[in-house]
Amino acid sequence: MTDSQARTSESTRARRSDAQRSVAAILEAAQACLALDPDASTAEIARAAGVGRVTLYGHFGSRLELVDQTFARSMARAEETLDQVDLSGDARDGLARLIGSSWTLIARSRSILVAAQRTLPPERIRELHDRPMRRVQDLIERGQAVGAFRTDLPTTWMVATFYSVLHGAADEITAGRLDSDSAADLITSTILPCFARDPAPSR
Amino acid sequence: MTDSQARTSESTRARRSDAQRSVAAILEAAQACLALDPDASTAEIARAAGVGRVTLYGHFGSRLELVDQTFARSMARAEETLDQVDLSGDARDGLARLIGSSWTLIARSRSILVAAQRTLPPERIRELHDRPMRRVQDLIERGQAVGAFRTDLPTTWMVATFYSVLHGAADEITAGRLDSDSAADLITSTILPCFARDPAPSR
Repeated sequence: MTDSQARTSESTRARRSDAQRSVAAILEAAQACLALDPDASTAEIARAAGVGRVTLYGHFGSRLELVDQTFARSMARAEETLDQVDLSGDARDGLARLIGSSWTLIARSRSILVAAQRTLPPERIRELHDRPMRRVQDLIERGQAVGAFRTDLPTTWMVATFYSVLHGAADEITAGRLDSDSAADLITSTILPCFARDPAPSR
Repeated sequence: MTDSQARTSESTRARRSDAQRSVAAILEAAQACLALDPDASTAEIARAAGVGRVTLYGHFGSRLELVDQTFARSMARAEETLDQVDLSGDARDGLARLIGSSWTLIARSRSILVAAQRTLPPERIRELHDRPMRRVQDLIERGQAVGAFRTDLPTTWMVATFYSVLHGAADEITAGRLDSDSAADLITSTILPCFARDPAPSR
C-alpha cells in the first residue's frame, strides 16, 4: 500500500465512523423525541441529535424510514429483555413474570408504538411483533398442554387478549386513571383467571 | 303580516329547510365515508353528499368539527340501542347481553371511532363515551353488590378491561384473524370468568 492509498483508506474509515456516529445519534434522538411526542418532526429529531436535516435525510430517506428503524430498534432491545424472562416451571408463574416484563417495556415505549402506528403500515408493525407474540403463544400452548390454561378459546385470541389488556392499561395510565406502580399486579389478576383451566362458572 | 313579510318569512323557512337537508346529507355522507375510510377528506364527503365544499364548510367550520358531529351522532344512536338492552336479572346474563349489543355497535362504527381518535382530543372522545361507560360501571357495581362479580379490582379498571377486550376483538377482525360471527361469544367467554366473584385460583 502506498502512503497515498493508506491516507485514502484512513479517511474513508474516518468518514464511515463519522457516519455511524451520526446514525447512532439520530436513532438515539429519535427514540428520545418520539417517546415524548409520537408526532415529533425530523427537524426536532435532527436538532436533538446535533445534526442538520440534510445529514438526517442523507441517512434516512424519509420520516417513515426513521420511525421504522427507531421502532425496529426499540423492539429488538425489548426482545433482549424478554429473552431473559424465566418461563420455565409453572406456566401461570411464567405468565405472571412475562406480564411484568412486557408491561415495563410497553409502558416505557408506548409513545414510540403510537408513532409507529401513525406512520407504518399495520403489516410492518405486526411483523415486528412476531417474536414477542410467538413467545406469549408458546407459553399459552405449554400451559394448555399441561392443563394449566383453558383450551376452549383459540390461542391467537388469548394472545390478542394478553396484548389488549396490557395496552388498555397503558391507555388508562395516559388518561390518568391508573397508577403505573399498581398496573402489573392488576393486569396479572385480570389475565390469569381469564386464562385459567377452570374459569369460575358464569352461573 | 304584509304579503312581502309573508314571502320573506316563507323564503327564510325554505332556506332553513334547505340548510337542514344539506346538514343531514353531509352528516349521512360523513358517516358512510368515514366508515369506509377514517381518513376520508371533506372533498370526498362533500361529493358523496352531493354538495360543494363551500356548502360543507358553510355548515361545518372544519374537518374536525364535521368528524366531531359525525362521531357524536353515531354515539347518540348507539345509546338509543344500548338503552334497550335488558340489564335486569342476573348481572352475568345482563353483562353477556350488553357485550352482545356493544360488540355489534363497535364492529359497525369502528372506523368512525378511528377517525375520531385521529382527529379529536382524547378528552372529547372520553366525554362522548361517558354514558356507555357509566352503564357498564353501574352493571358491574350491581353485580359486585350481589356477589356475582369480584370486588378485588377497581371498577374503573374492570370497565377499561371490558372495552380493551371489545376493541381488541375489532382489531383482530380488521387483521383477518377473527371471524366477526364468533366474536361476541368469544368476548363473553373471556370477560365473564375474568369478572367472576371466585376467579379460578392462580395456583
